[in-house]
Amino acid sequence: MTNEERLEQHTHDLLTERGVSIEAIGELVMFLQEKFIPNLTLEQACENVNIVLRKREVQNAVMTGIQLDKLAEAGQLDEPLENIIAEDEGLYGVDEILAFSIVNVYGSIGFTNYGYIDRVKPGILAKLNAHEPGIIHTFLDDLVGAIAAAAASRLAHAHPELEDDNY
Amino acid sequence: MTNEERLEQHTHDLLTERGVSIEAIGELVMFLQEKFIPNLTLEQACENVNIVLRKREVQNAVMTGIQLDKLAEAGQLDEPLENIIAEDEGLYGVDEILAFSIVNVYGSIGFTNYGYIDRVKPGILAKLNAHEPGIIHTFLDDLVGAIAAAAASRLAHAHPELEDDNY
Amino acid sequence: MTNEERLEQHTHDLLTERGVSIEAIGELVMFLQEKFIPNLTLEQACENVNIVLRKREVQNAVMTGIQLDKLAEAGQLDEPLENIIAEDEGLYGVDEILAFSIVNVYGSIGFTNYGYIDRVKPGILAKLNAHEPGIIHTFLDDLVGAIAAAAASRLAHAHPELEDDNY
Amino acid sequence: MTNEERLEQHTHDLLTERGVSIEAIGELVMFLQEKFIPNLTLEQACENVNIVLRKREVQNAVMTGIQLDKLAEAGQLDEPLENIIAEDEGLYGVDEILAFSIVNVYGSIGFTNYGYIDRVKPGILAKLNAHEPGIIHTFLDDLVGAIAAAAASRLAHAHPELEDDNY
Repeated sequence: MTNEERLEQHTHDLLTERGVSIEAIGELVMFLQEKFIPNLTLEQACENVNIVLRKREVQNAVMTGIQLDKLAEAGQLDEPLENIIAEDEGLYGVDEILAFSIVNVYGSIGFTNYGYIDRVKPGILAKLNAHEPGIIHTFLDDLVGAIAAAAASRLAHAHPELEDDNY
Repeated sequence: MTNEERLEQHTHDLLTERGVSIEAIGELVMFLQEKFIPNLTLEQACENVNIVLRKREVQNAVMTGIQLDKLAEAGQLDEPLENIIAEDEGLYGVDEILAFSIVNVYGSIGFTNYGYIDRVKPGILAKLNAHEPGIIHTFLDDLVGAIAAAAASRLAHAHPELEDDNY
Repeated sequence: MTNEERLEQHTHDLLTERGVSIEAIGELVMFLQEKFIPNLTLEQACENVNIVLRKREVQNAVMTGIQLDKLAEAGQLDEPLENIIAEDEGLYGVDEILAFSIVNVYGSIGFTNYGYIDRVKPGILAKLNAHEPGIIHTFLDDLVGAIAAAAASRLAHAHPELEDDNY
Repeated sequence: MTNEERLEQHTHDLLTERGVSIEAIGELVMFLQEKFIPNLTLEQACENVNIVLRKREVQNAVMTGIQLDKLAEAGQLDEPLENIIAEDEGLYGVDEILAFSIVNVYGSIGFTNYGYIDRVKPGILAKLNAHEPGIIHTFLDDLVGAIAAAAASRLAHAHPELEDDNY
């Protein structure tokens, strides 16, 4: 296994460990793109998610964000950061910043998709955002939305003829 | 009038010329923030829009984007850029890039608001996005959404106690 | 010729028209990377520049920025934007914003390379920045620096083992 | 003390704890701006640094980055992230991403200043970047450069008449 393959595998393992499957992210891609790409299958959506997860910037953001979620869950961050992340405080924007480094990988056309699902919170995003006691997904929900938005952008680049002008 | 005041006035004039009132942007701010800040008035929303329009980065983006819309409307851009902007082509992301330079002024917490209204297109955004023949608002609709998102972020910074954790 | 090939060719033509060769950008890449990748050849540097120019985000930024330079040169922008771009005014940052959409294509590791050559201005960047009467390269110098920084990032991703820790 | 004042104080304390004084950052601002603003004093430079440190986005980035440096120093991060941060690996760009959220606070004109000092590494930046055994400043050196670049941008906005066109 090369170092690149090891980082890719590790990123997949981290998502699995935190309860996020490729299929769950693929369903977010479907939510974003099925109205633009009529014949899109969940398989194609998942394939694009997997390609996004091969990008080093995406792996960096996922590793760093999930690390901070886990440390906050274990109460191992210094105050006041511990409380800010544990509470998913509104004025803390580092989670959005990491998410944007993911979306950016396929250019600015993914920005609105990310913002949209982050507010509407379909599928897995609602679950991640449930704020159950003892479980902290402050970074993870933004990361997952961003991976889906990036995969949707990748699909849009591959099917320019199907893009709606208003998109 | 100082140079700063002249640029501010010019930015207001450009928005008026293109059919966008401060009130219309203020209503977008209400749409984004009234569920978080219960007593928010349209007057306060508009006041925050006006403060956003004092920022030089915002003025730069508005002047440049509206200039490109107007030149495209007059058919004075070179091909293929003329057609790309006239058609609001899906893979052209410079409009989103300019919008993000506006949102960024109050930090990353505005990213999701911008993405959200850009997809939902409430109020003036639906009108700007109607793609009527001869009228080109490829940049303007993104700029207006971004100004509203920035004003919403400014309000959020001013009322941290009212912010929802999930925001 | 597909639409993609046409946009790529058009981007090359625009750079040529404005006096920027692939070799000149390749030399900027050499300037940035030869201390990290000892056997780097100008040919490899140019090859990476050409790959960067295949990205749609890069083409969008180049087309839009050069269009604004040319319109300013012809005196066809509205005031005060005409004067702001003609004078390359310090507080106008849209040129940097477009440049960053190029750098971003290969992730955040290109940010510092871009900033560095933009200040040091080696090779073609000094020439573009000479502010000769009647010639306006307000956008072009930033675009060219950004293309070189993106190509350098691409090389860094391809040679992780050669990367200096301090980079 | 309000919550805002507490976060501001905490940010100052963290910088002090990690060996970075306001004066050291002020000297970086002098390095960047004294050629543009001839009468600039170190006192004014430091004053602008202090104002930058009042911004919530800046505080978020400083708290998060220093936390990750400290945890890496204590060996408390999971592998491979522990090693990536401990080694300041070239393809890990989250440090640059946090730095950019700081620079962005005063707009895109600060991008090049940040890139420039990050490569030239004047003053405190050389010290932070010495990679002494047992000491990890992977995030801190980028954060400090970004705070200086943001303060320089703030000064540029306050003195538009002194800005060089080529800046």
